[in-house]
Amino acid sequence: MKIWLAYPAASYTDSSDDETSPRDKQQKNSKGSSDFCVKNIKQAEFGRREIEIAEQEMPALMALRKRAQGEKPLAGAKIVGCTHITAQTAVLMETLGALGAQCRWAACNIYSTLNEVAAALAESGFPVFAWKGESEDDFWWCIDRCVNVEGWQPNMILDDGGDLTHWIYKKYPNMFKKIKGIVEESVTGVHRLYQLSKAGKLCVPAMNVNDSVTKQKFDNLYCCRESILDGLKRTTDMMFGGKQVVVCGYGEVGKGCCAALKAMGSIVYVTEIDPICALQACMDGFRLVKLNEVIRQVDIVITCTAPQPSVLKGNKNVVTREHLDRMKNSCIVCNMGHSNTEIDVASLRTPELTWERVRSQVDHVIWPDGKRIVLLAEGRLLTLSCSTVPTFVLSITATTQALALIELYNAPEGRYKQDVYLLPKKMDEYVASLHLPTFDAHLTELTDEQAKYLGLNKNGPFKPNYYRY
Amino acid sequence: MKIWLAYPAASYTDSSDDETSPRDKQQKNSKGSSDFCVKNIKQAEFGRREIEIAEQEMPALMALRKRAQGEKPLAGAKIVGCTHITAQTAVLMETLGALGAQCRWAACNIYSTLNEVAAALAESGFPVFAWKGESEDDFWWCIDRCVNVEGWQPNMILDDGGDLTHWIYKKYPNMFKKIKGIVEESVTGVHRLYQLSKAGKLCVPAMNVNDSVTKQKFDNLYCCRESILDGLKRTTDMMFGGKQVVVCGYGEVGKGCCAALKAMGSIVYVTEIDPICALQACMDGFRLVKLNEVIRQVDIVITCTAPQPSVLKGNKNVVTREHLDRMKNSCIVCNMGHSNTEIDVASLRTPELTWERVRSQVDHVIWPDGKRIVLLAEGRLLTLSCSTVPTFVLSITATTQALALIELYNAPEGRYKQDVYLLPKKMDEYVASLHLPTFDAHLTELTDEQAKYLGLNKNGPFKPNYYRY
Amino acid sequence: MKIWLAYPAASYTDSSDDETSPRDKQQKNSKGSSDFCVKNIKQAEFGRREIEIAEQEMPALMALRKRAQGEKPLAGAKIVGCTHITAQTAVLMETLGALGAQCRWAACNIYSTLNEVAAALAESGFPVFAWKGESEDDFWWCIDRCVNVEGWQPNMILDDGGDLTHWIYKKYPNMFKKIKGIVEESVTGVHRLYQLSKAGKLCVPAMNVNDSVTKQKFDNLYCCRESILDGLKRTTDMMFGGKQVVVCGYGEVGKGCCAALKAMGSIVYVTEIDPICALQACMDGFRLVKLNEVIRQVDIVITCTAPQPSVLKGNKNVVTREHLDRMKNSCIVCNMGHSNTEIDVASLRTPELTWERVRSQVDHVIWPDGKRIVLLAEGRLLTLSCSTVPTFVLSITATTQALALIELYNAPEGRYKQDVYLLPKKMDEYVASLHLPTFDAHLTELTDEQAKYLGLNKNGPFKPNYYRY
Amino acid sequence: MKIWLAYPAASYTDSSDDETSPRDKQQKNSKGSSDFCVKNIKQAEFGRREIEIAEQEMPALMALRKRAQGEKPLAGAKIVGCTHITAQTAVLMETLGALGAQCRWAACNIYSTLNEVAAALAESGFPVFAWKGESEDDFWWCIDRCVNVEGWQPNMILDDGGDLTHWIYKKYPNMFKKIKGIVEESVTGVHRLYQLSKAGKLCVPAMNVNDSVTKQKFDNLYCCRESILDGLKRTTDMMFGGKQVVVCGYGEVGKGCCAALKAMGSIVYVTEIDPICALQACMDGFRLVKLNEVIRQVDIVITCTAPQPSVLKGNKNVVTREHLDRMKNSCIVCNMGHSNTEIDVASLRTPELTWERVRSQVDHVIWPDGKRIVLLAEGRLLTLSCSTVPTFVLSITATTQALALIELYNAPEGRYKQDVYLLPKKMDEYVASLHLPTFDAHLTELTDEQAKYLGLNKNGPFKPNYYRY
Repeated sequence: MKIWLAYPAASYTDSSDDETSPRDKQQKNSKGSSDFCVKNIKQAEFGRREIEIAEQEMPALMALRKRAQGEKPLAGAKIVGCTHITAQTAVLMETLGALGAQCRWAACNIYSTLNEVAAALAESGFPVFAWKGESEDDFWWCIDRCVNVEGWQPNMILDDGGDLTHWIYKKYPNMFKKIKGIVEESVTGVHRLYQLSKAGKLCVPAMNVNDSVTKQKFDNLYCCRESILDGLKRTTDMMFGGKQVVVCGYGEVGKGCCAALKAMGSIVYVTEIDPICALQACMDGFRLVKLNEVIRQVDIVITCTAPQPSVLKGNKNVVTREHLDRMKNSCIVCNMGHSNTEIDVASLRTPELTWERVRSQVDHVIWPDGKRIVLLAEGRLLTLSCSTVPTFVLSITATTQALALIELYNAPEGRYKQDVYLLPKKMDEYVASLHLPTFDAHLTELTDEQAKYLGLNKNGPFKPNYYRY
Repeated sequence: MKIWLAYPAASYTDSSDDETSPRDKQQKNSKGSSDFCVKNIKQAEFGRREIEIAEQEMPALMALRKRAQGEKPLAGAKIVGCTHITAQTAVLMETLGALGAQCRWAACNIYSTLNEVAAALAESGFPVFAWKGESEDDFWWCIDRCVNVEGWQPNMILDDGGDLTHWIYKKYPNMFKKIKGIVEESVTGVHRLYQLSKAGKLCVPAMNVNDSVTKQKFDNLYCCRESILDGLKRTTDMMFGGKQVVVCGYGEVGKGCCAALKAMGSIVYVTEIDPICALQACMDGFRLVKLNEVIRQVDIVITCTAPQPSVLKGNKNVVTREHLDRMKNSCIVCNMGHSNTEIDVASLRTPELTWERVRSQVDHVIWPDGKRIVLLAEGRLLTLSCSTVPTFVLSITATTQALALIELYNAPEGRYKQDVYLLPKKMDEYVASLHLPTFDAHLTELTDEQAKYLGLNKNGPFKPNYYRY
Repeated sequence: MKIWLAYPAASYTDSSDDETSPRDKQQKNSKGSSDFCVKNIKQAEFGRREIEIAEQEMPALMALRKRAQGEKPLAGAKIVGCTHITAQTAVLMETLGALGAQCRWAACNIYSTLNEVAAALAESGFPVFAWKGESEDDFWWCIDRCVNVEGWQPNMILDDGGDLTHWIYKKYPNMFKKIKGIVEESVTGVHRLYQLSKAGKLCVPAMNVNDSVTKQKFDNLYCCRESILDGLKRTTDMMFGGKQVVVCGYGEVGKGCCAALKAMGSIVYVTEIDPICALQACMDGFRLVKLNEVIRQVDIVITCTAPQPSVLKGNKNVVTREHLDRMKNSCIVCNMGHSNTEIDVASLRTPELTWERVRSQVDHVIWPDGKRIVLLAEGRLLTLSCSTVPTFVLSITATTQALALIELYNAPEGRYKQDVYLLPKKMDEYVASLHLPTFDAHLTELTDEQAKYLGLNKNGPFKPNYYRY
Repeated sequence: MKIWLAYPAASYTDSSDDETSPRDKQQKNSKGSSDFCVKNIKQAEFGRREIEIAEQEMPALMALRKRAQGEKPLAGAKIVGCTHITAQTAVLMETLGALGAQCRWAACNIYSTLNEVAAALAESGFPVFAWKGESEDDFWWCIDRCVNVEGWQPNMILDDGGDLTHWIYKKYPNMFKKIKGIVEESVTGVHRLYQLSKAGKLCVPAMNVNDSVTKQKFDNLYCCRESILDGLKRTTDMMFGGKQVVVCGYGEVGKGCCAALKAMGSIVYVTEIDPICALQACMDGFRLVKLNEVIRQVDIVITCTAPQPSVLKGNKNVVTREHLDRMKNSCIVCNMGHSNTEIDVASLRTPELTWERVRSQVDHVIWPDGKRIVLLAEGRLLTLSCSTVPTFVLSITATTQALALIELYNAPEGRYKQDVYLLPKKMDEYVASLHLPTFDAHLTELTDEQAKYLGLNKNGPFKPNYYRY
């Protein structure tokens, strides 16, 4: 599962019905700078409030800022970034600034930018090039404006999806001479990097922050445990108690979904292809079935079949038209996995079935005999569309990104080669430790004697790299 | 806790900006009748769709309709009703119709009517007098139009809050000669009836359907177990894992809240005044504390201190200004109890504190030092304002009302006197049994031999009246 | 479910192979008294240690002793008792002594006496007449020795099963003139009292302590939640994870069993006859089935079908020979209910089936084709035979008994008539409150203002009598 | 955590008081063979029954036997084994025999042999050299008798602890020329093998079966989830509800203990040194504390601090004398970790403290002021001493061993070098799949199209080697 966004629940509406393209506007922030391109610089104040609220739930970044009052581990860093532009990203960017970096930023998605936040960043001096509803041409234009600047050349890349990296490879390959490293957050981007690496074309070290243990646990297990309930509730107002649910896949996402629904009084069935995960489902108290066996009786079908965290995609056609034909009236179908391949939604686009949009993200697909299937988010990732992601989860991600930047930027020559790396265990542990104060949690320290006895360094790492339980 | 409403998540907006009072309009339904008063009869079709969706989740009423194809247990019944007018109420009304009753209906709340549903009911021939945004004068006018009709006199009352009953007592006391009974759904209304009864002024049998076991279990334990999560998530997008929560009160509502939050990984503390409930909290794994002991450290404070289901009100000032002063920054405060007395919200209306409305139903109260408390629904019942109630819960209530009407209407003379009664255990069990098919649940039947051995009737009741576990 | 005993896990063995009947022995305690009859007074020291260990887990009785240092609420009380004689009973007896009472005691069961504890009581001056392995004649002789004493006549009765009461009725009816009341602990004894009362023959007030809320919650829900796991583990060493279990009955005992097994990863099915309990099972996440539907697939069958706490017996033949014939190999069958009627064990005593005793309390019943059913405790109550009862649960019971004695002994004339009473709510609450310190639990007190607002007394009772959630 | 044994609950007692050393006896089985040395061949029948019972819960090995009716994957294998000799090991040995292997066997522990089982194996023709209560000299003599045989030379080693491997290295190094591989089950033995490998002295491939995912999940998470409850209950009869517990360490063992105790109503605190595990504890709802913060208030202290599954040992002195001094009266202290270093038991052997053995494996340590600490198993692994291990867990282990033997024996030359290997993922998955039928669990198979889409083989492996969630 991949979490992209955390929009505030109250949706934003630009009061102005301004149709002018931002590229055609002349805007200045209050300090006179016009090195940015956003929808409307006047929305800065509203965006600032959102950033301030986010700051309260991103304690780890705030702690990094505090420590940066002495040394500036990113002094001299010139970071070009391409991510979703939200309040949480803003907290990250302003933290990178506090750590000494100069930043230029574009959006990694043409729809996801919060205009108010972009305005607030521009107002406080960040060269941001992003707005909601960019065209494809706008998208690349914005990226280019971040990279192609007189008298400024990036030495670090923070990417989410690989488009920025791709653009530099294509247009400005010489820039890599000065670039110390790439930090990539998304599965897609990581996949591209591994391909470059295999092809021998990766010319700087890259860090895959998607697969750090801490981030994975939160993106998958902990986040999904809560968001499956939230997503179902917001879209359908259903009651969980007594409902029969089948969860396809018992990886981390499936484990989170199953645990939450069981706790709420649902009866949960699991399907799996991997016997080890299957046996875990049994021991955790779930009947392991084939989808066919329960498809007629279940109230909810949830797919989450990406075979492992670092794989690009969920399985294909896990829920087929044949399954959909056999579901009972009012059955809810949704996807918690990575891509939109798991439910064969295309098979429902046939003339004998009627689609009725009953709410945002909720379709009733109606069979000739009146049977209705409730399809959520058209089979796309439920959490992306129908629930919000807690800021705390994004805090884990953003902190991981910041530490990866610091590590790559400060690594002595030779530590990293032209390859794709995981975040070192010790920094992974550090991300976790920065989030403990939120819970008023007190870590125990090894005594010297104990550390010696166990053969461990008192400051970690405490586990080998492969340990991911 | 009392659940009032289940609005669809997508809020309705009248496309027309029609400001004319419905009382001044001349409307007819497609059959030519004008014996109704609603906002706009043309909205009927949209309302009908909502009713149809609700029907799918109210299987018990639909089952009653099916059985009514033979005998009509309410043939001859003339029911005047005063309740919230929602899709679920519509399913109830149309069921009463199918059972043989004639109905006239007004709203029990000036804001809660769904205009589209009222229109759909009027279109299909129900004399409905209700719209969203009635004035107080409108309110009583509507009730009067239900009661004061040429050539039609009610013989049953279905009330929610006691206003309809009150009006008849005041204006048309002679009507009670023909009235066979009152069915009252709300705590407030039941309270009024008991006062009438004590004063010797109750002149017909009345049935308190608020206190049936099945309804109580759903309104309190099962519904709150889900709605506490939903209410908190929709308003704050917070993450539950690792959060410290104090729940004030460990009755059925408190038990539901605690179980849900514990399951989601929160650390839950409980306060109680009753040692028996307190000991249960201990055995269920919650630290029993005084509020003072944990107020500085908790992330969420939830009140639910109504001392028992049939009591009108929660406790007073359970959360005081002193507590609020000591809470930590970002602490969330909300109320799952009955009334809005439990949190001393008035104490926060002082000049040194700033209130900031950050979202619908969410206020930040800001202390001079910048500390923010997140107050939900201004201390009113969270589930009323910030989450929806599953139709299934309303189905339990509506079925209970329908069966109470049938029981009172058909009871042989002398079974009920001029007093307030609980729903007979056997009918309470019947409400439950009508909801089992939803879960594909199969009840076991006693054999003759077993029934004899246990001294029970095979068809119930299976428990004494006082058994409420 | 009824809990009788809490033997220490290490079984006692009298080192002596002394076959002499205690009735034929001449024994004196160290103070020269011979007003007792126990197996061997020399075992007193070992018994004293067991009593001391029990004292540590019976904080409520110890608290009563402390308070009794001032007033002695049982001064003048002459209590004759007939209960199981265990370390926990000894703590009760010595507490009654500390509260001012004189006591004489016999055993209510011919097997259950711990000889060492009886010796310790005799040594410290209690006239105890009991040993393990009494004959029926011994049994009544011991009771008689308690009652029929020169110059001492009881004014209070503490009974467990009704045999003592019965004996006095039969032999010394005149004694009732001085007797202030009977406290009865068992379902059987309570049943006998109600019959006496109905027949107009009850000549003193009696208190049914079996049905107090606190005691019921612990005997049923909390105790069974733990003892089902313990009983199954000790007898079969089975693993719970992934096992399919059917629990017959979803009252308090069933709720406890289901919750525990679900938590350990079992898949649990429920059978019920009462639709209200059935609906609760659904909402709690259990598939409600008829036994027939799952009998071929389950690994464990558990019966707990007593229709309500105060009923004498479980249902009859819930598990029939037909069910047993269809169970799969290695299926475990056991009973957590009241009596041994629920499983039709008699039907297994047929020539074609072989019984093999594989461990204490564990029989394999072997079908001609080699299929084995694992029958625990021959269908008798599992917790009685195969697990121990935590002292804490017995502490609840003993405290309830002590308070009932105090209440009856001190009640002003007229408060109690010749009838059977439940423990007053307030004393039930008091029992609970005396056990809170064990958990370092802090009860909240109502302020005067709050008490007035709620119309409650600050010291309770906080709930009406019927409130038993 | 390391699980050694699964004794039947009823302990065995040799009825004979035969003091003769087995080495001095002349015994023959019914076929006339005397190539064995056990306590008493006449106990064979009783042992056979235990083996038959174990067979019923070791479905995977029985399935392997069935498949072996065609091909014999171990035909020609001559396996020398050194493990605990229990009914479960017997099922393994007889399975190896059915797969075509010849076996000779000794015990890896001088106390753990079940004489009856050894007798049954000897009776059915296995050369077994083991009895309960061997001297050290006996121990090595038995091993030697397995290895040093006229006309028979082992070509496979199955070891548990490394003693057998060590003996062959020391005495018969030439044997390694014919040996195809070593399968080692214990952490200790694996450690020794890695040391040999590092030192360049490992002269055959070795397989570390301790660290397979399936085995680890069962030995640690699933087994401990049940055995912590069982161990505490059997030793102390305590009630879990409401108890405050601190669990030191939140690895797999800690996770299992915490989950079980939370489910039973305990309030659980966790200590950790690793921030990632610590954050998981927070998100799972446990307060993360330093031991000092809660030591005065907890009822139970449990240690499980081995830093990772493959590490030889738990931490040292996690619970110090200072902690023990501050615990409250009746606090229970026990160890679920690997070795007995975690609790500083030695510090309790001081003159001012009195030790009182109150039950088998239970000591009261008494302070001068009367305070008692309840120490279980003298700080050694609780599950080793105070609870039994379900046969199902041992089935996982035994199946893993069998498959590792098959893999090493049949591997084409060159697949394995002179190194220590983990069980290949695919065989790990195979072990899991062989255990699914126990749960009537149905695995889903990838379609050809899906397998292609995901780039996976339809028969696995389904995950990369490092995937261990």
